[in-house]
Amino acid sequence: MPAKGVLVAVTADVVIAGGGVIGTAIAWRAAMAGLDVVLADPAQGDAASLVAAGMLAPVSEALFGEGALLRVNLLALARFPSFAAELEQVTGHRVGLRREGTLAVAYDAGDYAALMRLTAFRRSAGLEAEELDSRACRKLESFLSPDVYGGVLFPGDWSVDNRRYAAALRQAAAAAGVRVVRDRVTAVLTAGGADGRVRGVALAEGGEIGAARVVVAAGSWSGAVDGVPAALRSVVRPVKGQLLRLRHPDGMPPVLTHTIRATVRGADVYLVPRADGEVIVGATQEERGQDLTVTAGAVHDLLHDAMSVLPVTSELILAETCAGLRPGTPDNGPVVGGAGPVGLWVATGHYRNGILMSAATADAVVACLTGRAPAAEWEPFGPGRFLAGKGAR
Amino acid sequence: MPAKGVLVAVTADVVIAGGGVIGTAIAWRAAMAGLDVVLADPAQGDAASLVAAGMLAPVSEALFGEGALLRVNLLALARFPSFAAELEQVTGHRVGLRREGTLAVAYDAGDYAALMRLTAFRRSAGLEAEELDSRACRKLESFLSPDVYGGVLFPGDWSVDNRRYAAALRQAAAAAGVRVVRDRVTAVLTAGGADGRVRGVALAEGGEIGAARVVVAAGSWSGAVDGVPAALRSVVRPVKGQLLRLRHPDGMPPVLTHTIRATVRGADVYLVPRADGEVIVGATQEERGQDLTVTAGAVHDLLHDAMSVLPVTSELILAETCAGLRPGTPDNGPVVGGAGPVGLWVATGHYRNGILMSAATADAVVACLTGRAPAAEWEPFGPGRFLAGKGAR
Repeated sequence: MPAKGVLVAVTADVVIAGGGVIGTAIAWRAAMAGLDVVLADPAQGDAASLVAAGMLAPVSEALFGEGALLRVNLLALARFPSFAAELEQVTGHRVGLRREGTLAVAYDAGDYAALMRLTAFRRSAGLEAEELDSRACRKLESFLSPDVYGGVLFPGDWSVDNRRYAAALRQAAAAAGVRVVRDRVTAVLTAGGADGRVRGVALAEGGEIGAARVVVAAGSWSGAVDGVPAALRSVVRPVKGQLLRLRHPDGMPPVLTHTIRATVRGADVYLVPRADGEVIVGATQEERGQDLTVTAGAVHDLLHDAMSVLPVTSELILAETCAGLRPGTPDNGPVVGGAGPVGLWVATGHYRNGILMSAATADAVVACLTGRAPAAEWEPFGPGRFLAGKGAR
Repeated sequence: MPAKGVLVAVTADVVIAGGGVIGTAIAWRAAMAGLDVVLADPAQGDAASLVAAGMLAPVSEALFGEGALLRVNLLALARFPSFAAELEQVTGHRVGLRREGTLAVAYDAGDYAALMRLTAFRRSAGLEAEELDSRACRKLESFLSPDVYGGVLFPGDWSVDNRRYAAALRQAAAAAGVRVVRDRVTAVLTAGGADGRVRGVALAEGGEIGAARVVVAAGSWSGAVDGVPAALRSVVRPVKGQLLRLRHPDGMPPVLTHTIRATVRGADVYLVPRADGEVIVGATQEERGQDLTVTAGAVHDLLHDAMSVLPVTSELILAETCAGLRPGTPDNGPVVGGAGPVGLWVATGHYRNGILMSAATADAVVACLTGRAPAAEWEPFGPGRFLAGKGAR
C-alpha cells in the first residue's frame, strides 16, 4: 500500500470506490470473475457496515406497497447462505450466521393487530410465520417481559455477525488478489467531456488510478464523488443510526437465542444475539446530515426500550455505543447499475439492508462488469429512475 | 523506568505504593520536603482517581452524626485552593477549579424538607447556604426541569477537574524528582519479624525497592499488600461507582454552570460541569467486589435521572462511560497514619472524598514522614481504631 501523500500510479481493470460490505463483496466477486481489481477507501469499512445489527429480514424492513423492494430483498435473502458458506470456506472463518429466526412481539392488542397485518403481508410473499400467544413467546424466550401480549415467529429471518462478515469479505478479497488503496476517491475521470468513457479515478491525496471501469459503492458518501451525474449525487442521503453492543458478564448464560423485534412507545427496537455472547440493540433513525455523535438521549431510549422488552438486559455489560450513516434514497430502494459515462456503475442507497443485499448486489454488479444482465429483480433499481426525464417507478 | 520482568535494584527515602491522587499528592509533597521518593504503581492512576466527578463538597458527603469526618473534610476543603494554586503555578496547567457553587434541588415537599435538614446541618458547621424557590432555581440554571420544587445554593461547594488535577500532580511530582516504577507493590518488607523496622517493598515483577519508610496509598487494593497488619487489610473494601462523561455538541452553549445535586426516585444524582464543556453524571454505589464493568442498567438509570433533572441532557454527546472502585471503610472515614511496623504508614479509605482530601492527606502523611504531628483533625482517623483491642471512635 503506498504511503499517504505519494502520487499513486496504479492501473486496474476495475476500481471500486468504497470498502464497506457492498464495495468489498463486489471487489471479491469481480476478482473471482477474473478481473484485476483495486478497492479504494480511506478507512475501509469504518462506516455503516460496522455499525449494523446484521439482520437478514427482507420483509420486516420493506413497507407495504414496496413490492419491487421486497422482491429484490427476497432475492438477496435466497442468495445469502451460499454466499456466506463460500466465504467461510475460502477464509476458514465463521461469519456468525444465526438461523434461529426472529420473534416479533407485541405489548397490546393494537400492536398485535399491526403485527398480524405484517404477518399476512409476509405470508403473501411466501414466507413462513407462526403466531404465538404470550405463554408461547415466553416459552421460546424465557426472559421476555411477562406483559408480552403475543408474537409471531419468523423462522426465515436470520442474522449475521456484520463485523465478522465484513472481516471475512476483506480477507477473501485480498486472497483473490484485490489490491487496496487507503485513500478516498474524489472524482471519476473520463476521457473527454462528461459523456466520454471512464478512464480512472482521482484520489484525495493527489494520485490517480487508471481503469476503464469504476464502481462507486461509497454508501452515504457516494454523492461526494465528482463525475457521478449530478442528478444522482443528491439522491443518497445519510440516515443516522445509533446502536449499542452489550455483552454478557462472565458466567452468565445467554439471555436470548432469537432476534427479538418490538414496538415500544411507537419506536421499533430490536435485540440481536451473537454466538459470542454479544447482544446488539438498535437503532435510531435520524436525519442529521453527517453527524456521527452518540447522544445521551438515544442511548437512554435504546436501553429503556430494550429493558422494557427483556428486563434482564439491565444486567448486561454496555460494551460499546456507536453511530453509523445508512445511505437512504427517496424511494427507500438501492441504486445499482450503470450511470452516465460508459464504464461507470453505482451500487449504493442500500439504506437499512446493506448487509442483506451485499451478496446479490455483488452478483448484479459483476454481471454488469462482465457484460451480462443482472437478475430481473434489479431492473426497477437502476440509476436511470433518478436521472432527468425518467419517471419514478 | 525499568522494563517489566527486570529485577529492580532501587533505594529511596520513601516508597509510595499507589499512584492515584492520594499517593501522587503525598509523593509530590514529600519530595518538596526534601525526601528522595519512589512511587510504585502498575498503571499510575488507572483507578478511582480518574473516574471521579471531582466535587469538593465536604458536608453533603458526610452523614448526620459523622462529626469527626465533617471536621477533617472541612480541613481538606480549606486547604484545597492554596494547594491547587501552587500546583497550577508549578506546572503551568489549570486544574479546572470551579467556584460557582453547588445547587441542590428537590422535586417535592418531602425532598425539600430533607434538604432543609441538611441545610441546617451545614449552617451549624459554619457553611453558607441560600434557600431558593423554584423560580430562583431556574433563574440560576435555566435548563432545570420546570417541576423543580425548590433548592439550596451552597456557594462554598466547588469542584475540580479530577483528570486535569491528577495529571498536574503527576507532572509536579516528576518535576520535584519523584521517580516512578511501573509495578505493583505486593509486600512491605521488614528487617526481622512482623514488628521489625520497614526495609522496603517487594514488587509483582520480582524486584524490590529498599526504603526505611513506606506509605501504602493503594485505594481499594490496599488490602492486597502483604505486611500491612491483617486487621487493617480487611478494613478497606471496593465500592463500585459508575459514571458518565457527557460533552456538548459543537456550537451548543453550556447547559449548566453550577454543580447540580438531586434525589430522583430515591437515588442521588449529580451533574458537574467542566470548563471545557464536559458534564459528569454520577454515580452508582455498588458492593460488587473488584468488578469494573459498565452495565446497561446503571447507564440507563444515570441517563434517566440526569434527564429528569435537566432534560436538555438528552442532547449532549455520551463521550464515555466508566467505573471505578472507591476505597470504603466500615465507618466511612479514611485511614491515615502509622500502622504496625516502624516506618509503615497507610493513607487509604477515602471513599467518596479522595479528591477533596488529597491535599490535606499529603500534609498529614508528610508530617508523619518528617517527624511532625499531623493536624488534630486527623486524630480519629488513625489505623489504630481498627487494630485489635482498640474501640471504634
